[in-house]
Amino acid sequence: MRSSTRVTLTLPLAACLAAPSLTRAQTAERYRGAADRIIAAATKDSAAWNRIAELTDTFGSRPAGSESLERAIDWTLSRMRADGLENVHGEAAMVPHWVRGAESAELITPRRKPLTMLGLGGSVGTPAAGITAPVVVVSSFDDLRAHGATVKGKIVLFDVPFTEYGQTVLYRVNGASAAAKLGASAMLLRSVASFSINSPHTGSMRYDSTVAKIPAAAIAVEDAMLLHRMQSRGQAITVHLQMSAHTLPDVRSRNVVGELRGSERPDEVVVMGGHIDSWDVGQGAMDDAGGVVAAWEALRVIKALGLHPRRTIRVVGWTNEEFGAHGGRAYRATHAADVEKHVFALESDNGVFRPYGIAVVGTDSAMAMLRRIAPLLQRIGADSVTRGEGEADIDPLLEAGVPGAGLHVDGTRYFWFHHTNGDTPDKLDPREVAQCVATMAVYAYVLADMPETLPRTPVAGATH
Amino acid sequence: MRSSTRVTLTLPLAACLAAPSLTRAQTAERYRGAADRIIAAATKDSAAWNRIAELTDTFGSRPAGSESLERAIDWTLSRMRADGLENVHGEAAMVPHWVRGAESAELITPRRKPLTMLGLGGSVGTPAAGITAPVVVVSSFDDLRAHGATVKGKIVLFDVPFTEYGQTVLYRVNGASAAAKLGASAMLLRSVASFSINSPHTGSMRYDSTVAKIPAAAIAVEDAMLLHRMQSRGQAITVHLQMSAHTLPDVRSRNVVGELRGSERPDEVVVMGGHIDSWDVGQGAMDDAGGVVAAWEALRVIKALGLHPRRTIRVVGWTNEEFGAHGGRAYRATHAADVEKHVFALESDNGVFRPYGIAVVGTDSAMAMLRRIAPLLQRIGADSVTRGEGEADIDPLLEAGVPGAGLHVDGTRYFWFHHTNGDTPDKLDPREVAQCVATMAVYAYVLADMPETLPRTPVAGATH
Repeated sequence: MRSSTRVTLTLPLAACLAAPSLTRAQTAERYRGAADRIIAAATKDSAAWNRIAELTDTFGSRPAGSESLERAIDWTLSRMRADGLENVHGEAAMVPHWVRGAESAELITPRRKPLTMLGLGGSVGTPAAGITAPVVVVSSFDDLRAHGATVKGKIVLFDVPFTEYGQTVLYRVNGASAAAKLGASAMLLRSVASFSINSPHTGSMRYDSTVAKIPAAAIAVEDAMLLHRMQSRGQAITVHLQMSAHTLPDVRSRNVVGELRGSERPDEVVVMGGHIDSWDVGQGAMDDAGGVVAAWEALRVIKALGLHPRRTIRVVGWTNEEFGAHGGRAYRATHAADVEKHVFALESDNGVFRPYGIAVVGTDSAMAMLRRIAPLLQRIGADSVTRGEGEADIDPLLEAGVPGAGLHVDGTRYFWFHHTNGDTPDKLDPREVAQCVATMAVYAYVLADMPETLPRTPVAGATH
Repeated sequence: MRSSTRVTLTLPLAACLAAPSLTRAQTAERYRGAADRIIAAATKDSAAWNRIAELTDTFGSRPAGSESLERAIDWTLSRMRADGLENVHGEAAMVPHWVRGAESAELITPRRKPLTMLGLGGSVGTPAAGITAPVVVVSSFDDLRAHGATVKGKIVLFDVPFTEYGQTVLYRVNGASAAAKLGASAMLLRSVASFSINSPHTGSMRYDSTVAKIPAAAIAVEDAMLLHRMQSRGQAITVHLQMSAHTLPDVRSRNVVGELRGSERPDEVVVMGGHIDSWDVGQGAMDDAGGVVAAWEALRVIKALGLHPRRTIRVVGWTNEEFGAHGGRAYRATHAADVEKHVFALESDNGVFRPYGIAVVGTDSAMAMLRRIAPLLQRIGADSVTRGEGEADIDPLLEAGVPGAGLHVDGTRYFWFHHTNGDTPDKLDPREVAQCVATMAVYAYVLADMPETLPRTPVAGATH
């Protein structure tokens, strides 16, 4: 799940010069039959769910730098070959190697109680003896600033209720350095979660290079609220925090690639996928084995139906989205010479829940063309085409002008499980997963086969 | 939360001889004003929620035998006196003292992974080195029996999906001995939970004295399903279980008692309450600080309004419901001489969620009389009167013929949090808690004040 926001570009004239495209009726006439067969094949059984379960049960969590990630990549490559996909291979990407190590937090005063915590990805550890310090609970960056130098030497707890991920996650990403600027000794964060059963959420954080690096951890929503209530009652709060988190040298990982080669224009590519890595908790089933498997199964279904689109459809399981999106950037670098040949990029990274359709980054003209394809998905209710903000792994392509989209799904419960030990296959419904497969497959097939391509997105700073 | 079921008794003639009672119109005429004042006072602020939070934040979990339980009892007695309640005192009750100790479970094969677990209350520990054994996953007692002696020496995991608490909990209570009968070395249980975010649920279990006592623990729903899928794939599963659980000698605890003495018949008593103890995880906010506080606040509101019912209203915070309902039984024993003077018993032990009304154990005639009071609660939607099955702490009274009821609330999410680390005040809504207070207060006041009393429930084996 991306946390950055997209810069909106003004639209230069060149974008309006796209070739005339199929009407809605022509699209339906030409592709209704194939789309119906794809949907029927994708939704006839629980194959996709079973594959998510097998992948995530077998390898568990798959953090960047881990052996389990590399073994999951090997397994995926091997199974893609067994499925008969073409040009199956790994593409090298260097990824960071952060290790959580042993960690714990305990409330010392006003009463002793273990706090349910997860260190944040990228955090430094504490000294070996840990940090024992008074806690100051704040509700926002403004509230922190209002405390000023009084937080010096203390542990700052951001107790910020979940509103919208892109907003609330700023405390996870930037909270430690904001607290360190005022001399805090450590940063605790109310987990970025829309619901909790004492279920802490990890995720990445960043240090501002101009201030001291202090340890940073999320605690369960319940514990954050408890400490806040204690502070409101005037009680002095002390916490002991112990973290052995550390960062090892970068390691070599791989993006997983498998294709169905185009019958007429194999050098033109529709790329779709998700990220094969996960956080180091739970099984990374919805974040994001589901995305990788949905794209992979989509291609398997297209191939099994004997469909031969004009262009190549490429499935990618990007490595290390979670900790800096190195996989997506490596993919763009590896394909620098042929990025112009990428006609569409599609990613699923919001959980393979009931799909509504796609959330698009592209020109108005591209949106209009996609809206002519969308009705093919009406029978499973996945025909929505809205404006989106991109997805972390395909952002480097979108920034290069490739039109693209994220799969748009029912996100009601995503942030209940995201980056927790509860991200397991049981949270996913086989029927909904199959509908995600169908949605990705129909878009990939039609966009790979239709006569014209979507107009490219104007790129800031490009010459025309 | 009780897990037993009630024996239905046939109705002897004596029960039909109750005195004529107020009609619905007379009840409304006499009590509408007081009821409206009670509801307004109870729902005007978050006093009850605040008290639940203060109690449970200050003392945390309150298992039988613990210092935190006794300190919470002292605090409650002290605050009841400060509220001006009468006859505030503790009544002795001996309670068991089970100690969880350090515990862990780890999946060893097919891959290493910590299992999220909670030992069951009453379980024995493992040998110091733990138990490492193959796991057999079964779906039911029948499925266990079908495995026969093949489970000898193995760890049996009951992966039984939640259906209805009274049914599913039988595996928690009796699973260990059922497995031990076939020679199993330990019993694991899918947590008795209707929803999970990797959140294990503890609870009590019993040993059959004719077979060996084997360690028993609940694991998170996710982990149980994982192991079951692994078994379905033909993988050999090995788990290492380590528990230092043990039972210490019984200790003296107390039921918390506070009253508003009756103005005309102080020896006749409406008793209401919940249990002050909890499991040793979370804060026991909904199970059952909420019940104790709702009854307590109900009495505080009645007193604050200057209402003086004819009979005594007694609030009781029963001790140790969770591990054998010793508090409820001690109360009955302490009041053996005046049990006949108890005119009604009301307990809240299903969470202080939105109240629908009451679930009654009593004669048809008692039900009819209660249905004449219920309309007083229509304005907060709490006017349902249904047949219930009793509540653990008042069962000894109900069994002695006292008509009684449990507070009937929206139970949608109760078994998401029950007996977990997620039973914390944030799960309760201040407005709903206040409505529970109002419901208990209206019933208590009217039943303590109305001219007649409800007919007693016929008792099996009693002479007439």
